[in-house]
Amino acid sequence: MPTITELRVSDVRFPTSRDLDGSDAMNPDPDYSAAYVELLTSDGEAGNALVFTIGRGNDVQCAAIAALADHVTGRDVDELLSHLGDFSRELVGDSQLRWLGPEKGVMHMAIGAVVNAAWDLRARREDKPLWLLLAELSPEEIVDLVDFRYLSDVLTRDQALTMLRRAEVGKAQRIETLRAHGVPAYTTTPGWLGYSDEKLLRLLREAREEGFAMVKLKVGADVEDDVRRMRIARAEMGEGFPIAADANQRWDVADAIAWLERLAPYDPAWIEEPTSPDDVLAHAAIRRAVAPLPVATGEQMASRIIAKQLLQAGAVDVLQLDAARVGGVNENVAILLLAAAFDVPVCPHAGGVGLCELVQHYAFFDAAAVAGDREDRFIEYVHHLHEHFEDPVVIDDGAYRAPARPGSSARMHAESIAPHLFPDGAVWKDLARADAV
Amino acid sequence: MPTITELRVSDVRFPTSRDLDGSDAMNPDPDYSAAYVELLTSDGEAGNALVFTIGRGNDVQCAAIAALADHVTGRDVDELLSHLGDFSRELVGDSQLRWLGPEKGVMHMAIGAVVNAAWDLRARREDKPLWLLLAELSPEEIVDLVDFRYLSDVLTRDQALTMLRRAEVGKAQRIETLRAHGVPAYTTTPGWLGYSDEKLLRLLREAREEGFAMVKLKVGADVEDDVRRMRIARAEMGEGFPIAADANQRWDVADAIAWLERLAPYDPAWIEEPTSPDDVLAHAAIRRAVAPLPVATGEQMASRIIAKQLLQAGAVDVLQLDAARVGGVNENVAILLLAAAFDVPVCPHAGGVGLCELVQHYAFFDAAAVAGDREDRFIEYVHHLHEHFEDPVVIDDGAYRAPARPGSSARMHAESIAPHLFPDGAVWKDLARADAV
Repeated sequence: MPTITELRVSDVRFPTSRDLDGSDAMNPDPDYSAAYVELLTSDGEAGNALVFTIGRGNDVQCAAIAALADHVTGRDVDELLSHLGDFSRELVGDSQLRWLGPEKGVMHMAIGAVVNAAWDLRARREDKPLWLLLAELSPEEIVDLVDFRYLSDVLTRDQALTMLRRAEVGKAQRIETLRAHGVPAYTTTPGWLGYSDEKLLRLLREAREEGFAMVKLKVGADVEDDVRRMRIARAEMGEGFPIAADANQRWDVADAIAWLERLAPYDPAWIEEPTSPDDVLAHAAIRRAVAPLPVATGEQMASRIIAKQLLQAGAVDVLQLDAARVGGVNENVAILLLAAAFDVPVCPHAGGVGLCELVQHYAFFDAAAVAGDREDRFIEYVHHLHEHFEDPVVIDDGAYRAPARPGSSARMHAESIAPHLFPDGAVWKDLARADAV
Repeated sequence: MPTITELRVSDVRFPTSRDLDGSDAMNPDPDYSAAYVELLTSDGEAGNALVFTIGRGNDVQCAAIAALADHVTGRDVDELLSHLGDFSRELVGDSQLRWLGPEKGVMHMAIGAVVNAAWDLRARREDKPLWLLLAELSPEEIVDLVDFRYLSDVLTRDQALTMLRRAEVGKAQRIETLRAHGVPAYTTTPGWLGYSDEKLLRLLREAREEGFAMVKLKVGADVEDDVRRMRIARAEMGEGFPIAADANQRWDVADAIAWLERLAPYDPAWIEEPTSPDDVLAHAAIRRAVAPLPVATGEQMASRIIAKQLLQAGAVDVLQLDAARVGGVNENVAILLLAAAFDVPVCPHAGGVGLCELVQHYAFFDAAAVAGDREDRFIEYVHHLHEHFEDPVVIDDGAYRAPARPGSSARMHAESIAPHLFPDGAVWKDLARADAV
């Protein structure tokens, strides 16, 4: 019987800050990075996952993942993969490691990556893309994945089961439709703060030509700049075309309300992350004040407990889960169930490195087996770094195509990993040499 | 001019799980540990601090602290120490490291430790205990320490300034009183879950004889055990003696309410951490349901943003800040200001290793310069591991005596550090050898 032989972690970084790709009001100079996981088995298989970071500290994230090695090495693969609910609860519940969160930050993201690597391995062994593996589980199997601790005041296991059973009706048909048409994408590619107005215009036109359902602009650094860029975008895309705005946590409550008054004439499709990701009550206050402008948040939501409160408090119109922020597949299944219970659409956060590849599985699973058909479900798309993945996303006519290959799409090319290892890979050595000149 | 030459970090662990000291419903087997910081200067001085953890993962915490070395090494000591508000904001605002929280978990605690080491160094250089250094700052200097980002919907810089100016009246007199009488302590020493009823009884008697103002029992593992232990404690201590109960995050909302119905006949002084530290709305719901039983929480409150919401939502009767959980002195000053603005008492969390030493400074500063006199202010006390510190707490007649020596009381004896280094110190090598027999 195969066993887990190694939890291998690599500090992989891309020097994206040199191009201002990915710059926003809070993150002016990201080097898109991955704390990259390979869960290796005695019969030569591997499950992969990553925690996305933006540069410094990726080594800390790697150290946190490595601290989980004792939970996996030596374990029976079949046993482990057939009890991924228990496995997830075991990692989250490690009574000593729990102190380092609990259920938040570096240690929780590390748990998420190890859980996700196990899911990738399972999906490969079952020869299915992750979304389909999840969608074909029974309602009972799905609720067994979830840790309902701290959720039962709004969603119990039984309530979730009832929801999932209801969603069984039409599931096979929805899977066929998803395979035929995919899930609509929106793009943030035009909207980074570091781009000139000319580049913004050019990329907006390209986005329209490529058929994207929505575009998103970063805002929050300078209100006059934001007004000008929103005006340019609105003029270019025309009335009615959805243009979202993303403040990346930049504001306090009063700032948000005042700033959004200036942007409102350009009819933003939503305002994203107006304030701290931990501030449920501030999101609720902003949403009340700027209604009917929708509020979106969630990419840095630390756990299902924050998701629950955002929904309870009526703080969000759109929930944006992230694949590499919470405790992995299991916690994201919980978040999808919560959102469906509150009838709030989930539009996953993507971009960075690998996030598009990872999050698409949640949207397809949600559409197939949880919330079902919704016209307000989009997946974020950014045109960065897909070439480093073995099974990169496919965007066609503005929609994500259903992943068809086995796994969670997390595996990187070996030729991409080696040169980007930090600090000793060839790319970083070359940059260090060039900077020294 | 002296500069910072090194940020030294040590993984120091005590094998406390062998005695069941410190066991509670969520943390059955802690090895009290410190990610211990020495901030060294070119003229041979050192500032100290620590992040308290409970064993596994202390190495991850050390890695996170080490990741901050570039922010401190080479810097001018005088310049750094005279701008600790800017320094704190610089660390919290590092645009790449911020992704790893933001403002929570391993990376945020690391920032807190480095900030605290700088404060320890400053207090030593100014030849004052930390609490007195803080208390003698002007209101303007105090508000300059605070990052009001995400707080302004409930507390602005100007409002804080007004509060602090009001507290200037009588400050000198309060400092004298604090020096004469200290701050009342309560003890958790009797109440650990792993202790027998006989040990509980013996330790309760000792607590009374030593003059403690309150005792606290851990609860939440088994309701019948809790009822029995609360009954024993109430019978022993008599009606009216404050006996708090601490559930260490064990419950969902409905569980908490049902469980507390069983404990209510024994008149708990407060119920502490009934549920997840991130669940503001659950704390509020529990508080409404169990009133007038007071609700206390805060030892694992990740930031001032969570503190703000606990206060806004009416979720707490008592706020329990911790010295090594948030972003250091600066953020704890913010939390004290918030609590005072809502007229909620702050009773710092202590125990573990070094926490008693660290938190006392906040209670004395609060009493002297922020909230002023309050009869409902206690500092937690646990009788563990004080012998490892150069300036251990002094408890006299049930009260913490005012720290008198320069610094923040964080410095450990060199002879305590070396044998407890993990995994290569003598204590751990001996245990490994003994376990192998």
